[in-house]
Amino acid sequence: MTHRLIVTSCSVLVVPEQGPCRVETDQDILVEDGVIAWLGPAGSGPEAAGAETVDGTGLLAVPGLVNAHTHGPMTLMRGAAEDVSVEDWFNERVWPMEVNLTPADIGLGAELACAEMLLSGVTTFADHYFHAERIADAVVRTGIRADLAPTFFSSRGRAALEESAETAVALHGTGGGRVTASLGPHAPYTVDDADLVRLAELAKAAGLRIHIHAAEHLEQTESSLARRGITPIGVLERTGVLDAGALIAHGCGIVPEDLPTLAAHRDRTGVACCPKVYLKHALHPLTPVRSLLDAGVAVGAGTDGAAGHNTLDVWEAMRLIALTQKQAERDATWMTVSDTVLLATRGGARALGLGDRIGSLEPGRAADIVLVDLGGAHCRPVHDPVAALVYSARASDVRTVVVDGRVVVRDGRLLTVDLPALLAEIEARVPALLDTSHGRAVQHYDP
Amino acid sequence: MTHRLIVTSCSVLVVPEQGPCRVETDQDILVEDGVIAWLGPAGSGPEAAGAETVDGTGLLAVPGLVNAHTHGPMTLMRGAAEDVSVEDWFNERVWPMEVNLTPADIGLGAELACAEMLLSGVTTFADHYFHAERIADAVVRTGIRADLAPTFFSSRGRAALEESAETAVALHGTGGGRVTASLGPHAPYTVDDADLVRLAELAKAAGLRIHIHAAEHLEQTESSLARRGITPIGVLERTGVLDAGALIAHGCGIVPEDLPTLAAHRDRTGVACCPKVYLKHALHPLTPVRSLLDAGVAVGAGTDGAAGHNTLDVWEAMRLIALTQKQAERDATWMTVSDTVLLATRGGARALGLGDRIGSLEPGRAADIVLVDLGGAHCRPVHDPVAALVYSARASDVRTVVVDGRVVVRDGRLLTVDLPALLAEIEARVPALLDTSHGRAVQHYDP
Repeated sequence: MTHRLIVTSCSVLVVPEQGPCRVETDQDILVEDGVIAWLGPAGSGPEAAGAETVDGTGLLAVPGLVNAHTHGPMTLMRGAAEDVSVEDWFNERVWPMEVNLTPADIGLGAELACAEMLLSGVTTFADHYFHAERIADAVVRTGIRADLAPTFFSSRGRAALEESAETAVALHGTGGGRVTASLGPHAPYTVDDADLVRLAELAKAAGLRIHIHAAEHLEQTESSLARRGITPIGVLERTGVLDAGALIAHGCGIVPEDLPTLAAHRDRTGVACCPKVYLKHALHPLTPVRSLLDAGVAVGAGTDGAAGHNTLDVWEAMRLIALTQKQAERDATWMTVSDTVLLATRGGARALGLGDRIGSLEPGRAADIVLVDLGGAHCRPVHDPVAALVYSARASDVRTVVVDGRVVVRDGRLLTVDLPALLAEIEARVPALLDTSHGRAVQHYDP
Repeated sequence: MTHRLIVTSCSVLVVPEQGPCRVETDQDILVEDGVIAWLGPAGSGPEAAGAETVDGTGLLAVPGLVNAHTHGPMTLMRGAAEDVSVEDWFNERVWPMEVNLTPADIGLGAELACAEMLLSGVTTFADHYFHAERIADAVVRTGIRADLAPTFFSSRGRAALEESAETAVALHGTGGGRVTASLGPHAPYTVDDADLVRLAELAKAAGLRIHIHAAEHLEQTESSLARRGITPIGVLERTGVLDAGALIAHGCGIVPEDLPTLAAHRDRTGVACCPKVYLKHALHPLTPVRSLLDAGVAVGAGTDGAAGHNTLDVWEAMRLIALTQKQAERDATWMTVSDTVLLATRGGARALGLGDRIGSLEPGRAADIVLVDLGGAHCRPVHDPVAALVYSARASDVRTVVVDGRVVVRDGRLLTVDLPALLAEIEARVPALLDTSHGRAVQHYDP
């Protein structure tokens, strides 16, 4: 039997593929079996008797936000690695703490991540972590959508490579299609070329893409050029990763000579920009978003993991992209409010290879709908609702969230997670998580 | 009769003058006639029978945040000047719109500003605007604390100068001491030297300070050097403004040669850093916070007006200062979470000349207390509460706000403003506010 949901009398944010967003007022959105079936003036649509109803009066429906790069389970380490250099962040704090994580911990951290994201209107995320099967469980349980990449380092050996690929293949398409998967080599500086070649072959054979950190900052690119005479993006091309289709995390070290390479693969390449962590780690320059967009490459807004970003808040990521890109380009007129919203919706969707399924509210797309309340003192008067979304709204202005046609947050309350019980379980694990007296680490950082 | 208030069983954020902040758990705070009388382990304090009680269980008490520079009434223009250059922002959007403002509008905009700030835990703000008496009314009514500077341009003439000074003198000390005042010359590029000299004399005679925009960006400094052979900070020194005591807004164009001048007046000089607007206007460099702090100058966190900043959210300003200063200095280990909190509390208090009255929770200080809930999914687990305040918390995590010993926000609800009625009044004025068909402006921008 068809499941029908109607969101009534809301305003709708229309995000075109380019150009200004606009708002249509007093609209209904009819959803059938998880897909937007009809959208138009309130009361003028097809008969919706018996449909589950969400009253959208006074609220703005926006496409569910896409978090284009994160490590969900790292919520467990939120705030545990502050005011340190990139090297110390990896070698002294995060990679030693990760030794402590059990598969069960990863499930708990992932569930908290899903909860935080759903409550803030993020309906899809691209994840890169160990024990992705535990993350998939959390995705299925909580009702969010995700593309999961099982993290692989060459230091783990070839069997682990094959296993990570098998995990991805097994996860892809589960959860009624809400879970997709990518292969997850960590980075060109932790995965050797032979392993990248093998993973690219496996990805192509399985019809999957590759999610990888690359050219995270300029020093990595310079180091790669000095050691190997090739940029990290060049390595991705040479090993077949770009050919398979890649979601590249960060890319602050993408240099002009990389752009033709990326442009040649524009139909299957995305870059996730996560500015909060770049600023926090004192990086300069930032992701060259303007050049990437000019080259036709998809760019999405990401949070990276909460051990660096502290939140998984795409509102924050989106706002910081607008602010930092204006400054980086010394041009206050670019990265407009509409272009910024585009990155966090359609841009992220394209970057994840989901550009035809999510990212905008239109018939035929998955019903990933976020109802936002712009009525707070910090948003009013609303001269420009798009500006309000980018520069005034907070994650806490999210009222109701629908993913794949299912209401998962209603009036600010998450329906799918027992949050107090989850947090209590996590708190009990905190002392063990923070203990780095073992002196070990999952990997050494020396890009 | 003594009014007594007790906040029971909260955690308390201790913000020392330098070094790491710390959290004391299970504390009571006893307030008598607006002043913190006692603070210590719950249940061990003086008898508090009959005191008004606020249950702080599970909440963190932090000093009320200080917004070191804003233009409150510009909430009316929130989001009405996006994606434009600094020149167009002033000349095409904001200064033409300001022609439309009536004194009554300014009162409405100020009341909305006070409401927004109180709801987000800002208990004190430094304001710079026209019709400051209307803003004072809003401050008194809403229960917030403010230092108000009546804006003056030399284009308004000498009578307006004297009137602006008289307004400041009349306002200073009103509202039971919650209103203080400063003189408000707009900037060295809109107020001539003779007028700055006169205002500095008036300030010294009245025992008031001066709140002024200066060296807003490097191009202003370069322009001043080219036209006059002196930096804007040099102008402030030569005209006696620094001698009177100055709160300098922005200072992104403060150059190394200015530092000895500022250091010589360190006991009475503050600089307000408002990074969101600098990024939005594509400015580079930013306020040289490290050099200023090294010179002993007080630095506070500001939002500027909502026509540029879109919110009056000091949490956002504080976070952006940490992020942008780390990047600007290419040093991830400086502007620590504790140093950042300091700027938004004690730093702002000092910058406003209120360093002995507000900015920390200790006996003898005014009882400006904000209770924050770090229990949300976006803050947990809380490995480091100071990091949580800087990098995870949102304005919406503020639960209860006390100013001068009076509860003005309780459980997220503002007790002193009828917000729906206020917003309805403002909405009715929106078409008139946005109409710039008159072709006039309050001033022309050409620094």
